[in-house]
Amino acid sequence: MSTKKPSQNFSNVTYSFSAIGVVHSCFKEKFATPRQSGLVAEATGVIELLEPFNDPNAVLGLEQFSHLWVQFVFDQSMKTPWRAKVRPPRLGGNATLGVFATRAPVRPNPIGLSVVKLDSVEVKPNQVLLHVSGLDMVEGTPVLDIKPYIHYADSIPNARSGFADTTPAKLPVVFSSELKESLTDSCEYNRSLIASILGLDPRPQYHQFDESRIYTANIENVDVSWVYRLTEGDQWQIEVIALKKLKI
Amino acid sequence: MSTKKPSQNFSNVTYSFSAIGVVHSCFKEKFATPRQSGLVAEATGVIELLEPFNDPNAVLGLEQFSHLWVQFVFDQSMKTPWRAKVRPPRLGGNATLGVFATRAPVRPNPIGLSVVKLDSVEVKPNQVLLHVSGLDMVEGTPVLDIKPYIHYADSIPNARSGFADTTPAKLPVVFSSELKESLTDSCEYNRSLIASILGLDPRPQYHQFDESRIYTANIENVDVSWVYRLTEGDQWQIEVIALKKLKI
Repeated sequence: MSTKKPSQNFSNVTYSFSAIGVVHSCFKEKFATPRQSGLVAEATGVIELLEPFNDPNAVLGLEQFSHLWVQFVFDQSMKTPWRAKVRPPRLGGNATLGVFATRAPVRPNPIGLSVVKLDSVEVKPNQVLLHVSGLDMVEGTPVLDIKPYIHYADSIPNARSGFADTTPAKLPVVFSSELKESLTDSCEYNRSLIASILGLDPRPQYHQFDESRIYTANIENVDVSWVYRLTEGDQWQIEVIALKKLKI
Repeated sequence: MSTKKPSQNFSNVTYSFSAIGVVHSCFKEKFATPRQSGLVAEATGVIELLEPFNDPNAVLGLEQFSHLWVQFVFDQSMKTPWRAKVRPPRLGGNATLGVFATRAPVRPNPIGLSVVKLDSVEVKPNQVLLHVSGLDMVEGTPVLDIKPYIHYADSIPNARSGFADTTPAKLPVVFSSELKESLTDSCEYNRSLIASILGLDPRPQYHQFDESRIYTANIENVDVSWVYRLTEGDQWQIEVIALKKLKI
């Protein structure tokens, strides 16, 4: 294989892309958004195609596919300069890896990649909406491309995945007994979503377990507050202590 | 899920990216390059990281992963305007589908996505080379990003994949008896590669089977010529009739 020095014609070339869609997500902020797609099956959202891509012809036959690849811009991480070495949260912030050996959002080209379940395609006048789930993108994320998931090419069940070789362990999540009475029907769905999300333990990587610290994240327009508790069995668990529905 | 009209702030936003690497591939031209990754395991290549990304730290730990995602630019298709409806070669050019329901290289943002096997990471002075296989990218392809394949998130073996739900059928490939004597040892490897590639039937979608037509494609700097033959069993097969090693 020839590996001669690449010609100089790359050094000044930039490739410019515009968003073809935007994500409407149950995640309204980066904090507590899952770090990979598919980890929270209940996490739903809508990809809205933007003009001039909001053409029903552009999604003709898409409903034949159960899953989609979404290539998107990590627009909330774009201003942070990339570094060659990063500390993945999965490793508790204790180990450094090369940026290309991780999915860190701060990277030379901040392009994200997620596979989501396609629940339905909705076509309305001047609107094409893709209802998806299992997502890990935050509200307002610009989408660069959508492709069908092709299992014979994309699915490699026995791939070796280094530090991410197993699904992340989940912490148990309980809801404070004071909360139980105040939850309305419309919050019941959120409780399942909230438990799935918090079980992934969204603490910043540099935080130790600390029973005195209260965390709050906005999940589907509910401000969710929780603490970490050490149980009698010497296990850490998460206790949700407040749910505050925001008016939108 | 709120699907209010997206704010206007997307209409004038463009995202600019530079190549972080370049592909050195056994495929020297688009014609006969496989249409998905992984279909030709013998298809090898090297991703060379470009300055300033050719920092060994940026690939620290990458060798823990057996497979990589490569996000790249379809630079040979960039000048063709996208169309909402396309005719995938997989369907023989007979059916139209929305561009987002296909992996067609001509698309609103010409960003490709391939998973390749990582065979080794080679670090030399001022050079970082990723030796990969199963690739479907052509020589000189600009690479935008490299990410590890994480099987628990990326592998969905039972995904429903519409028109691409099964691995493409392969045509039998034979080498003309006149060829056999002239092949050198160094071509033996190429013969396996050539058989795998041609078996995928690289004919343009609008070509009917035609015994009188000779096709030629450059595979690993060998000009390979072949014809289609109808066998006695009424099956089409490919016969390689010439191999011409190019001096480079």
